[in-house]
Amino acid sequence: MPYGLTRLHGVTEAQGSYNRHATPQAAGGALARPLLEKAARDLALDAGDRPIVIADYGSSQGRNSLTPIRAAIAALRTRLGPHRPICVVHVDVAENDFSTLFDVLERAPDSYLAEDPDVFPSAVGRSFYRSVLPPRHVDLGWSSYAAVWLSRIPAMVRDHFWPPASTGEARAAFERQGALDWNAFLALRARELRFGGRLVVVLPGLPEEEPSAAASGSHFLMDHANALLSEMVADGSITAEERARMLLPSYPRRRSELLAPFEPDGCFDSLAVEHCEEFPVPDSGWTDYQRNGDGAALAARYAGFYRATFLPTLASGLAPERGAEGRQAFIGRVTEGLKQRLIRQPAPLQLTAQVMVLAKQGPA
Amino acid sequence: MPYGLTRLHGVTEAQGSYNRHATPQAAGGALARPLLEKAARDLALDAGDRPIVIADYGSSQGRNSLTPIRAAIAALRTRLGPHRPICVVHVDVAENDFSTLFDVLERAPDSYLAEDPDVFPSAVGRSFYRSVLPPRHVDLGWSSYAAVWLSRIPAMVRDHFWPPASTGEARAAFERQGALDWNAFLALRARELRFGGRLVVVLPGLPEEEPSAAASGSHFLMDHANALLSEMVADGSITAEERARMLLPSYPRRRSELLAPFEPDGCFDSLAVEHCEEFPVPDSGWTDYQRNGDGAALAARYAGFYRATFLPTLASGLAPERGAEGRQAFIGRVTEGLKQRLIRQPAPLQLTAQVMVLAKQGPA
Repeated sequence: MPYGLTRLHGVTEAQGSYNRHATPQAAGGALARPLLEKAARDLALDAGDRPIVIADYGSSQGRNSLTPIRAAIAALRTRLGPHRPICVVHVDVAENDFSTLFDVLERAPDSYLAEDPDVFPSAVGRSFYRSVLPPRHVDLGWSSYAAVWLSRIPAMVRDHFWPPASTGEARAAFERQGALDWNAFLALRARELRFGGRLVVVLPGLPEEEPSAAASGSHFLMDHANALLSEMVADGSITAEERARMLLPSYPRRRSELLAPFEPDGCFDSLAVEHCEEFPVPDSGWTDYQRNGDGAALAARYAGFYRATFLPTLASGLAPERGAEGRQAFIGRVTEGLKQRLIRQPAPLQLTAQVMVLAKQGPA
Repeated sequence: MPYGLTRLHGVTEAQGSYNRHATPQAAGGALARPLLEKAARDLALDAGDRPIVIADYGSSQGRNSLTPIRAAIAALRTRLGPHRPICVVHVDVAENDFSTLFDVLERAPDSYLAEDPDVFPSAVGRSFYRSVLPPRHVDLGWSSYAAVWLSRIPAMVRDHFWPPASTGEARAAFERQGALDWNAFLALRARELRFGGRLVVVLPGLPEEEPSAAASGSHFLMDHANALLSEMVADGSITAEERARMLLPSYPRRRSELLAPFEPDGCFDSLAVEHCEEFPVPDSGWTDYQRNGDGAALAARYAGFYRATFLPTLASGLAPERGAEGRQAFIGRVTEGLKQRLIRQPAPLQLTAQVMVLAKQGPA
């Protein structure tokens, strides 16, 4: 394996780049908010004064967690009253930019801390493919656009870097890894949830039918980036070896794959499916473009999203001696190339988001 | 005030510099270990399965927390048995290098995680001069070489940058701030401790008698650094304005100042003094030097300690346009100057450490 575990689940640039550009992920998260609020209203609560625990699995730099966690806290407060402590634990890999996360929590005007002195944030710097919190510790789990990142790379992708573009043996290996990681994620979270607790998971969707996959979602952005990488190998700005090391360990799952562990009775381990729904993600970039025809603005938005979400991970395939500067130059060049291509061929992203609500069964 | 709150309590370099060079602090922490273990044996424990909470107030990059926290966990395990979850919460300011902290916890062979899968680390990125954990949440608090950093700078120091070198009005302002911050630290921790919990605090000592202060402890290092800064202003490598902004918001307290809030009956708020002791800190650098006469090695050790502990904070007085490179150059130049001066005038550090053990009173 050319990658160590800690490099996986998506590398992000420091200084809040992910925070500023992960807008489709924010829109996807927003679709899940009513279900998250319902989960906060439905979960089992005991009397007493122990802190209520919300876990945010895969927080990145925190920006996209503010609104959903604030909504969850508001829903819990209608049940708890004002003073019961609520602990919010943000989980991400050790190399995540936790300083930006804590700074955002303190300073963002829409932070969930702004109105509630009895909320206590913390962070765990460890992969969520391991046990990260004590058993029966979590009242409400939230995981948005995170469990799409695999724990390991089971195969390389021929002539591409994105697992859904793979075929044959490689595709089968990714399907197996995707199933293993999803099962592991669910089993670990089942252990960490309290009885009667809820876990709400948001993921980018992949259509059930293979033929439509290539034409939809982020696939066309992936293909543009892939073509740019070939150009860069051809003109010598990256080596074939570097190109060969580039892979996004991201595995969007079909609805049937998400539900597979819960067959046949809707239960897996102690978790029961309460809700599973697929939504089209609103795309204000495309709406604006249809209104104002500003193709450059559309291209800049899509390229900014792509840069923040995927390019740091691709850049980690570069030779280490290129350093931070070389990685920045690479990221800048691909971003610029994407913009040019998107200006020539504007097309809507048409992303979908899957939302699952799981309830932990057991003695009240 | 030229400094914002988040710049205070000691800036550290990233990539683990503090971890490698804060050896006097480690030696001071080691002196407190038997008292920490005793606190772990004495604190009140309930039956049941709620996690036991250890809070590490002022963890920096984590290196110096490993051994004491491991010792505390071992002492707790003799009472708890193997499976009761123990949560360890490392508290430091938001800009602390939490990635190094989490990496050290996972990888260091002497990490407290190495032998115990039922220990769960987390971090809080917020000044400990604020509320950082829920009320009655902490069983055992530990704070080593952290509460010496002030929450704000109440005055500038004439012709120096270190509060103990100040006189007159400025000195009085630092004494007031030192008292305010110590009271605030204690009141906040009292609220966070469970009834029957313990808080162990380690601090660098300052002698009761003023005349001896100048000749002891880190004072001679501070004076060397101060002379170097004057040289750098004279030769134009830093501006007088930059020099004027440099101040270490560090306030070592006399034993009488530490005990003042507990007058007259040994209690402050719900905290009672169980133990208060001053120890000379073993100095293996000086011992080695007495044996082998290697003045260069001694100078490198002391300068390395000084660099990691104090220079990033002084460097934050530089003009922002100097950037990271300018700060590194400054830190390198002062470190080198210190080495040269220490080679010419070898002298022992003669540090002392104060250790306090506080117990939270209240219903069992």
